[in-house]
Amino acid sequence: MKYGHGDDLYRYEGKIRHNFSSNIWSHADLSGLCRHLAEHAPVGSYPTPDAHELAEMIEQEKGTVLVTNGATGGIYLLAQLFGGGESLIFCPTFGEYESACSIFGHRIIHAEHNDWSSQLDSFSNSSSERKICWLCNPNNPDGFVYDKALLLNTIRQHPNITFIIDMAYEDYTCAELPAADELLATDNAAVIHSMTKRYCVPGIRLGYVMANSNLISRLERIQQPWAVGQLAIEAGKYLIANGIGNMPGKEEYIKRAEIFRQGIDKEEGYKTCPSSTNFFLTEMDFASAAELKAFLAERHGILIRDASNFRFLTPRHFRIAAQADGENELLSDALREFRHIRR
Amino acid sequence: MKYGHGDDLYRYEGKIRHNFSSNIWSHADLSGLCRHLAEHAPVGSYPTPDAHELAEMIEQEKGTVLVTNGATGGIYLLAQLFGGGESLIFCPTFGEYESACSIFGHRIIHAEHNDWSSQLDSFSNSSSERKICWLCNPNNPDGFVYDKALLLNTIRQHPNITFIIDMAYEDYTCAELPAADELLATDNAAVIHSMTKRYCVPGIRLGYVMANSNLISRLERIQQPWAVGQLAIEAGKYLIANGIGNMPGKEEYIKRAEIFRQGIDKEEGYKTCPSSTNFFLTEMDFASAAELKAFLAERHGILIRDASNFRFLTPRHFRIAAQADGENELLSDALREFRHIRR
Repeated sequence: MKYGHGDDLYRYEGKIRHNFSSNIWSHADLSGLCRHLAEHAPVGSYPTPDAHELAEMIEQEKGTVLVTNGATGGIYLLAQLFGGGESLIFCPTFGEYESACSIFGHRIIHAEHNDWSSQLDSFSNSSSERKICWLCNPNNPDGFVYDKALLLNTIRQHPNITFIIDMAYEDYTCAELPAADELLATDNAAVIHSMTKRYCVPGIRLGYVMANSNLISRLERIQQPWAVGQLAIEAGKYLIANGIGNMPGKEEYIKRAEIFRQGIDKEEGYKTCPSSTNFFLTEMDFASAAELKAFLAERHGILIRDASNFRFLTPRHFRIAAQADGENELLSDALREFRHIRR
Repeated sequence: MKYGHGDDLYRYEGKIRHNFSSNIWSHADLSGLCRHLAEHAPVGSYPTPDAHELAEMIEQEKGTVLVTNGATGGIYLLAQLFGGGESLIFCPTFGEYESACSIFGHRIIHAEHNDWSSQLDSFSNSSSERKICWLCNPNNPDGFVYDKALLLNTIRQHPNITFIIDMAYEDYTCAELPAADELLATDNAAVIHSMTKRYCVPGIRLGYVMANSNLISRLERIQQPWAVGQLAIEAGKYLIANGIGNMPGKEEYIKRAEIFRQGIDKEEGYKTCPSSTNFFLTEMDFASAAELKAFLAERHGILIRDASNFRFLTPRHFRIAAQADGENELLSDALREFRHIRR
């Protein structure tokens, strides 16, 4: 799916001043990274064909990390490797699991994640031989986090299923998540990570897959050479060593996001969905998300994510990621204003 | 194929001072581009999912260009679209056609390009339904250029074959090449272009496929979103508008490359292969390319391309791309020295 994602800033020609649309913190100080890239400017020679120097900085055990062209690059490679398989996708969730699985000829089963564990039992008993389960943890768009112990147990109980766990939002929750070595120990899980999200650099496509060395080498064989450019590799090396500036502490950020969410939940006409992350879903009872989105962009320079194209959601759902306190208030006020105008 | 390509600078930890290994001019002045990227530093927001602003700058007719993650990204997407087909590949040539076709389950036929037109007649009569012919024009590694009129006629005469023409080196020859509109008019050709090569920026992965709008939209549907990062898009926009500095005139560069080639051809023990480009193949009669490559890197800080892993070539073949005149002399002298030492 090319269009229909969040952070479609490019549609608004500079009108947007407050971006709640992408699930990241939009005020990171990236000046150190930019200075580093400008000074090193690694545009004049080929990147390593597999970005292995970056993999080596990340992996705890040799051969267990493959660097990809964004987390989405990892999703597509995994869907390709398991082409023609049977995929269980818990929804609502990031649309690219479905897109990638469709492209690579998977039979797709959509299920609600509130019933995920029992769904897996029946999936496990189905007759197909190549079974894959896609989980986003924390989940986009609702911030749901899978219970850690139950998740690890479930993975272990179903060795005939390959679990693909997208942890792109792992740095945006205080809930307990399985650790890399716990997941790798199961031997039937592959984990997708996003440096784009971790370091708030959506312009740089950089992610990685973590799995046992057998699975990684199978992925490595089907990945095109130079999938990751030299600027992205250099950015990754810098970010791992230096991080970014102006990132709020996680506890503090999640706490403020929760206060923001509860505030909106009290507004008439808006009902939010509990979340363990910095982003959350809201459903309106009086207008469509498309109308609200157009109003906010036009009148307030605010960008939100119309969530109506997530499977199992409705035209009245939208998603927002908490930003700075002053901005959060602006959005709350604008939501109230929208309701007054529309009523 | 991840390893075994040219420009493997990263193996030599700063020892290389003269790079003849990649087929590009290695002295381009990229400072304007680097300044532009540093000033704009588009790392903080998502790229357009399909880099369409760049496609629009390139395409002559709407919907006939897809921007890809390097020319290699285009090769992999095309191999995927025609997955399970029958592919005729003229060799020796760039190894990624074979790699991509293998990954996507093609039946592959290798043929020598000196006999290409008659090979196509028999291929055209084979029973398979999905026939693809891969041509690199100018060809890597030998700089062979397909006769323009014969190529266009052959494409027209075989409407049951899709021709994929990789024109990555189009800016490195004075030979006549088919124009974009001539190829598009045939309706059964897709053309791969490389901005990486055109602007001497191998660190930035940027290419595009040009084809009829039907084929482009089929490719567009299987390409992952954000396949091209924002830094690469911004670099592409800058390069199209401003080009790069210190690039020798094409006629002058090709003329000097030809003088360089003829000089090496006169050296005892080295036999070069005629080329229409800035790069050419050489075969030795007394040592392996691997030995020569190690000697040149170690003793002279010179990098060449061991060409032994190109199909139909031998362990004694290597490829070099002409560089600045003084450097070319250094390499000629070093080749003479190597022969004296080894004899």
